[in-house]
Amino acid sequence: MIRFENDYTEGAHKRILKRLIETNEEQTPGYGVDEYCEKAKAYIQRECDASNADIHFLVGGTQTNTTIIASILRPHQGAVAAITGHIAIHETGAIEATGHKVLTLPSDDGKIQAKQVKELYDAHWNDVTHEHMVQPGLVYISNPTENGTTYSKAELEALSEVCRECRLPLVLDGARLGYGLASIDSDLTLADIARLCDVFYIGGTKIGAMFGEAVVIINDALKKDFRYMIKQKGGLLAKGRLLGIQFETLFVDGLYYEISKHAVEMAMMIREAFVENGFSLRYDSTSNQQFPILTNDVILELGKKYSFSFWEKVDATHSSVRFCTSWATKKEHVEMLVEDIKATKREKNGNDRVI
Amino acid sequence: MIRFENDYTEGAHKRILKRLIETNEEQTPGYGVDEYCEKAKAYIQRECDASNADIHFLVGGTQTNTTIIASILRPHQGAVAAITGHIAIHETGAIEATGHKVLTLPSDDGKIQAKQVKELYDAHWNDVTHEHMVQPGLVYISNPTENGTTYSKAELEALSEVCRECRLPLVLDGARLGYGLASIDSDLTLADIARLCDVFYIGGTKIGAMFGEAVVIINDALKKDFRYMIKQKGGLLAKGRLLGIQFETLFVDGLYYEISKHAVEMAMMIREAFVENGFSLRYDSTSNQQFPILTNDVILELGKKYSFSFWEKVDATHSSVRFCTSWATKKEHVEMLVEDIKATKREKNGNDRVI
Amino acid sequence: MIRFENDYTEGAHKRILKRLIETNEEQTPGYGVDEYCEKAKAYIQRECDASNADIHFLVGGTQTNTTIIASILRPHQGAVAAITGHIAIHETGAIEATGHKVLTLPSDDGKIQAKQVKELYDAHWNDVTHEHMVQPGLVYISNPTENGTTYSKAELEALSEVCRECRLPLVLDGARLGYGLASIDSDLTLADIARLCDVFYIGGTKIGAMFGEAVVIINDALKKDFRYMIKQKGGLLAKGRLLGIQFETLFVDGLYYEISKHAVEMAMMIREAFVENGFSLRYDSTSNQQFPILTNDVILELGKKYSFSFWEKVDATHSSVRFCTSWATKKEHVEMLVEDIKATKREKNGNDRVI
Amino acid sequence: MIRFENDYTEGAHKRILKRLIETNEEQTPGYGVDEYCEKAKAYIQRECDASNADIHFLVGGTQTNTTIIASILRPHQGAVAAITGHIAIHETGAIEATGHKVLTLPSDDGKIQAKQVKELYDAHWNDVTHEHMVQPGLVYISNPTENGTTYSKAELEALSEVCRECRLPLVLDGARLGYGLASIDSDLTLADIARLCDVFYIGGTKIGAMFGEAVVIINDALKKDFRYMIKQKGGLLAKGRLLGIQFETLFVDGLYYEISKHAVEMAMMIREAFVENGFSLRYDSTSNQQFPILTNDVILELGKKYSFSFWEKVDATHSSVRFCTSWATKKEHVEMLVEDIKATKREKNGNDRVI
Repeated sequence: MIRFENDYTEGAHKRILKRLIETNEEQTPGYGVDEYCEKAKAYIQRECDASNADIHFLVGGTQTNTTIIASILRPHQGAVAAITGHIAIHETGAIEATGHKVLTLPSDDGKIQAKQVKELYDAHWNDVTHEHMVQPGLVYISNPTENGTTYSKAELEALSEVCRECRLPLVLDGARLGYGLASIDSDLTLADIARLCDVFYIGGTKIGAMFGEAVVIINDALKKDFRYMIKQKGGLLAKGRLLGIQFETLFVDGLYYEISKHAVEMAMMIREAFVENGFSLRYDSTSNQQFPILTNDVILELGKKYSFSFWEKVDATHSSVRFCTSWATKKEHVEMLVEDIKATKREKNGNDRVI
Repeated sequence: MIRFENDYTEGAHKRILKRLIETNEEQTPGYGVDEYCEKAKAYIQRECDASNADIHFLVGGTQTNTTIIASILRPHQGAVAAITGHIAIHETGAIEATGHKVLTLPSDDGKIQAKQVKELYDAHWNDVTHEHMVQPGLVYISNPTENGTTYSKAELEALSEVCRECRLPLVLDGARLGYGLASIDSDLTLADIARLCDVFYIGGTKIGAMFGEAVVIINDALKKDFRYMIKQKGGLLAKGRLLGIQFETLFVDGLYYEISKHAVEMAMMIREAFVENGFSLRYDSTSNQQFPILTNDVILELGKKYSFSFWEKVDATHSSVRFCTSWATKKEHVEMLVEDIKATKREKNGNDRVI
Repeated sequence: MIRFENDYTEGAHKRILKRLIETNEEQTPGYGVDEYCEKAKAYIQRECDASNADIHFLVGGTQTNTTIIASILRPHQGAVAAITGHIAIHETGAIEATGHKVLTLPSDDGKIQAKQVKELYDAHWNDVTHEHMVQPGLVYISNPTENGTTYSKAELEALSEVCRECRLPLVLDGARLGYGLASIDSDLTLADIARLCDVFYIGGTKIGAMFGEAVVIINDALKKDFRYMIKQKGGLLAKGRLLGIQFETLFVDGLYYEISKHAVEMAMMIREAFVENGFSLRYDSTSNQQFPILTNDVILELGKKYSFSFWEKVDATHSSVRFCTSWATKKEHVEMLVEDIKATKREKNGNDRVI
Repeated sequence: MIRFENDYTEGAHKRILKRLIETNEEQTPGYGVDEYCEKAKAYIQRECDASNADIHFLVGGTQTNTTIIASILRPHQGAVAAITGHIAIHETGAIEATGHKVLTLPSDDGKIQAKQVKELYDAHWNDVTHEHMVQPGLVYISNPTENGTTYSKAELEALSEVCRECRLPLVLDGARLGYGLASIDSDLTLADIARLCDVFYIGGTKIGAMFGEAVVIINDALKKDFRYMIKQKGGLLAKGRLLGIQFETLFVDGLYYEISKHAVEMAMMIREAFVENGFSLRYDSTSNQQFPILTNDVILELGKKYSFSFWEKVDATHSSVRFCTSWATKKEHVEMLVEDIKATKREKNGNDRVI
């Protein structure tokens, strides 16, 4: 079985593994106050062009989102997010478990627009009964989104402007941030993101690290006591240097960008194979997740050799599925898949596969 | 200003006030373990035909919903509700503040149907990633709904059946329960509700009492330690006998039904006045809340003499508004309003008011 | 049975009841934005010599403490309180239910001293692992305390000074505030309390009102969005004017002080009777709660005619109990009790009752 | 600097690192449903003599304690723990953040006894106002404790019996479990712990693993939906197989016991060195943590070469400190320390170091 079901099927990039081995017997203080964490922070500040940013390392995405959001909101406030947002659907109510509602905005492609945020904000404050409703307290976006789409610089600037106007911190979930930045559609850099967001995180788990997410806090007002929050939410890793070593390796000389680029190239090969062979795509993704719409029999056939995720039923005979690539995706596996996609067409020669 | 803006503009029904005066100097134990509470419980058990029901008295609706729901759910579970449900919109995230997501179902009229619950339940359990999502843990409905509509016995039976099949406790918010039961459309009794729901409450605040809601717990599995929950959520009134006295008075000889009937009759006069004079209704309500769609100038004109609530904008020139009646509504005020609705038509003689 | 078991055994003071009756049929807007609430707020601001104070009315004490504390703290902070504090023991974990630890300080008489707060604060910040511990976020005291003792002006000034130095808001639970102010030992006024605390509340439930607590927020930084918090925590009474009417009556012309004084006089009669007849007191209380230490047989004997609360076992043959007086305590009842205390001595003539 | 400050100063045991390297490029499904996790579970079930136990792997201790405790308790219940317990002090209120009070029992050595649990339980249920207090909902212990002491089989059996009698699940924090089992004072096995506890966890982070804790749920009633809880609390590692691989390696052939034994032998060398040279011990620990009481000047002197933790001030000139050993502690470092302890004595020749 060749796995495209997600972007965390392997361990760690070999250079990261090498560094973990080299440093294994060293003794360092715990909880992330070691020199590796310090170095990793400096590299990330440099990449973000944000020397005053506070950087913290956590283990996983749900933990990171929860810690950030719980740290920012007062009890009567909620997090504004796309209805497709990870915090809105796939974190088992972790945000609600800290007492906060996720205020959802409609979205088909995973993105939300500045106009929507402004309308929701105005609707709240113009309602005479607003004290009976959850107050919008921050805006959460993912880039790339859970659907593989990415924000353009113009879109992010517009969002950022509205958020600052409404005094709503803008929080960006970057679990797959590298793959978003590597998208051919993206005109954003880490420095842009640092300029436009109040808090964001740089995902390591899905991009070369064994595990780990780097939180970047830009807004000074949100920096206070964040380590207490990490500890309370269970994210303060005893051997914190493991996170520092990994992020140092990812950012010392551009490894993060390099392996992100590889994953996206692999994804585009898959995308093209589906499109050229007459399949539609559920979302117009140019990052590492691809969502072709397949007939049920194609799903069964490809499923014998490849693992991928069911996404959603489209009609009685079609469903969309998700293929993920990653830093670890082997080109020969993608080439094999491309051939099999082609073969599927030749064998079936059926319009029924295409909508 | 004659107020139709809500159903809690006055104090208490005169018979309740009389009993509060008569008993004022008596000494009783605190926290609802007095004889008045005992008597009130017995009357409610009788009305519900549920001699084993546990009855508890709380002060207000948000508190009551929160206490019930927090008492039932485990941390990873959520409350299924109509998107229009009070807990979903108008309780400042009280449910989320106890750690639980409100899982919303679409609804235009405020009701949800058995089929929707089953589909949501199946969708959860059929999803291979269900552990990443909030598990449906109970079903919350309001009767009458926040839009004035009521469930038929058949609808409630179907909901109850699905809930039992899915092992989801069915919780009914009865903040306006009397007005629902008094609706000419309703074929439900308190005993039906007790038979079909696991927990519900009988609203007093909006129906004759100065304040107070009576929780009825039918399902034995949900009875344990409920008083701890009331105390923790701030609902254990020191002078609990005040609640007992009020509910005793409401249920000793049918006062609750009688005053509910009055309110609904007043509401139907208002409804008819609007309909006969060519106004549409936003919802087909036959309980104490009426939602006519008015032109902006009619809103301004009626607003000079009567207070009522803005509901929602319909188009550039029309909005729906809410008129509430209650146990305290004076017939002469309604007659005056009816005349003014008619006059509005005569003066304007305009089709523009009607859609 | 003559009840001294608590200070909420009766309904409301007759002048309050009279005002509730007089205003019963008036129509007012809901949720505390009516003219009665406005007037009550103005009277309280006047008494507090704090024209900029925000005043809010809630129903009960647990709700009030929870709403205040949850409104102030960030998630990693806790409320510092005496180990005997109401929030530490008798609110079923209401504070913890909002996510916050109660950080307890030892106390035998119910009070905490400035020095203790400073030591706890220093201990936290001097600990290198302080991020692994709950950060002190506010200081909670009760006046009078749960043991009937009261803070002197000097003690409260010292606490206030330390709190301001440590940037810890000082919150005062005034569920029995009137009885504390009326204590012969007290040199505090409402204006002193307003000057020295950041937030406090003036208890009505136990002092003449049918129910109700008036929150006074002095510190501007703590005023924001408090009504959202009240709603979320279930404390926003629909018929808010009921609270306004009651507090207006209590404060329009000094009723609150007058009835508090009565209660304390009654308590002092009881205190003296016990002391003069050779009984010890568990706490040196000069407010409305008295805690004599009685032999088990005296407890049984007095218990035939009077209800009072068991407090704690002292040794095999003695326990302390609590007698409460209130605004409603009848002098003839106290005189009868005083006689019975004397009689107890005469009949038994036993040293065994006394320690 | 030679570090004895904690037991997580190095990376992972070389055999674990080797397995992580060997498996690095394999593709597995995410979230702990891979074959490595399955194998690790089977080994742990075998060691626990509990083939029906549910096993789950999480990343760190605070997360694990919080997930277990939040999963078990209803909202009005608390966790009974020693006042020295990790959840009571050093998790930044993580338990309270899920809504639950930690009900502390006095303890000087870190242990609690069956009698204390019974007394607390009885005190709660015998109090007539128990509904106003947090209900004990489970008992939490650590073995070894935070002070290095261990429970004997007789003590644990007594605790277990009381807990079952009181229907309080017994939860054991085994962050350092291996070091407890390896203590010369311990007559417990993993199978004993599985027999006597309802839920416990086997710490990996401090005992050879890079990170990871293995939760063992024995009580069937507590197994339901635990994975939802892990996800919500942020503990469901994407690359779950990393945990499976580590625990498989630790338990396939006794590595866990072997390296635990080494650590304890190293600790006993340190203990003996202190004792033989006239130092007192703050706790009588025979596990991997040692708490000598040193004079301030000895602390300064040893601190030049070794890192260790300040524990608590004993008097003006003495403090207790903590030396930890671990699976990774080098014998030559311990021998050097032993020499330096001796030298300290020779140089100073002072009785002032000893109390």
